[in-house]
Amino acid sequence: MPKRVDHEQRRREIVQAAWRLIARGGFEAMTMREIAAEAGYANGALKHYFSSKDDLLAAAFQQSFFRVNERAAHSIGERTGLAAIRALCLEMLPLDEERQVEARVAIAFWDRVVASKALMKIHADSMAIWRKWIEDELETARRSGELVGDLSHEQIIDALFFVTTGMRVLPILEKGFGPPESYVAMLDAVLARVVAPLGEG
Amino acid sequence: MPKRVDHEQRRREIVQAAWRLIARGGFEAMTMREIAAEAGYANGALKHYFSSKDDLLAAAFQQSFFRVNERAAHSIGERTGLAAIRALCLEMLPLDEERQVEARVAIAFWDRVVASKALMKIHADSMAIWRKWIEDELETARRSGELVGDLSHEQIIDALFFVTTGMRVLPILEKGFGPPESYVAMLDAVLARVVAPLGEG
Repeated sequence: MPKRVDHEQRRREIVQAAWRLIARGGFEAMTMREIAAEAGYANGALKHYFSSKDDLLAAAFQQSFFRVNERAAHSIGERTGLAAIRALCLEMLPLDEERQVEARVAIAFWDRVVASKALMKIHADSMAIWRKWIEDELETARRSGELVGDLSHEQIIDALFFVTTGMRVLPILEKGFGPPESYVAMLDAVLARVVAPLGEG
Repeated sequence: MPKRVDHEQRRREIVQAAWRLIARGGFEAMTMREIAAEAGYANGALKHYFSSKDDLLAAAFQQSFFRVNERAAHSIGERTGLAAIRALCLEMLPLDEERQVEARVAIAFWDRVVASKALMKIHADSMAIWRKWIEDELETARRSGELVGDLSHEQIIDALFFVTTGMRVLPILEKGFGPPESYVAMLDAVLARVVAPLGEG
């Protein structure tokens, strides 16, 4: 099916063009005309691949999600349990330029998710995959005795999601937020709390 | 200066109209025409009060920020230290419909902040006020012996910002996130970690 492959390849190229524009500015102000120009297409030809900005943004979000997972799988390697969870979470944080653009894509996507059932489903499906991934590694950590804390798996997963989401947003919006190492330290503080119950103070 | 007062009053009414539209859907898809209609203005008259959607969104964000602070000041009353910090953070969480709309306004605002120096400054100024507010109460808590943990004030403030930001985003995007009590419990878990160093596991 060479035609089909070609279509997918062109969609990826257009997503890459949108990606470059997002890296330079916000998604909201971007027009389909600008995206077409960046991708080297005539305006109008773009509609053949993406029917709307929402459609394109969904593709960019999904590509970002796959890239996080691909890098995480590579980084995790043979590791399991909390080390695997840590490696996955690290790939979500805006620690380098690529991950900063991914965070921008996510922020742009969230604004649309609120208004669209279709986008909300794409978002929920992605979160469900991460939730399952972390849950499985928590099971492993529990069985191996690595995880002896008082928190439920659901509480741990929610805590990780809340913190990593906050860390995707705030450093993008404000230069005042500390160096990348400080986010890693924060993630490690959360993981330390997960492993150990609180002391008596 | 009755003319000035009138102008401010009308700006507030228009922000309220935008607010109602955000409560129903996303900000991005909203046109200035729709906002004008919702506010009961002729299209074009709106430009007299807000020159662009960005201008209106900035006003909505600032109004949301003031409302959080107003409710927090009321809720804090005579409390100081960690209890005051807890009360402030609670006003940021999407625990009821009003705060859910505020969270939606914030998400829409973030997407624009990325592309605009002017909006980035408005955002940074708001964060600086919250940071100072929490810092002052942490000083009080430290002096009174309420705060004996091992974390620096900066680490505590960052942790609170990351968690509350994550809690503003995710429950808005996904129905699967637990009931409001679970966010309050999560906030309390963070505050508990702040007060007490970790045990030996």
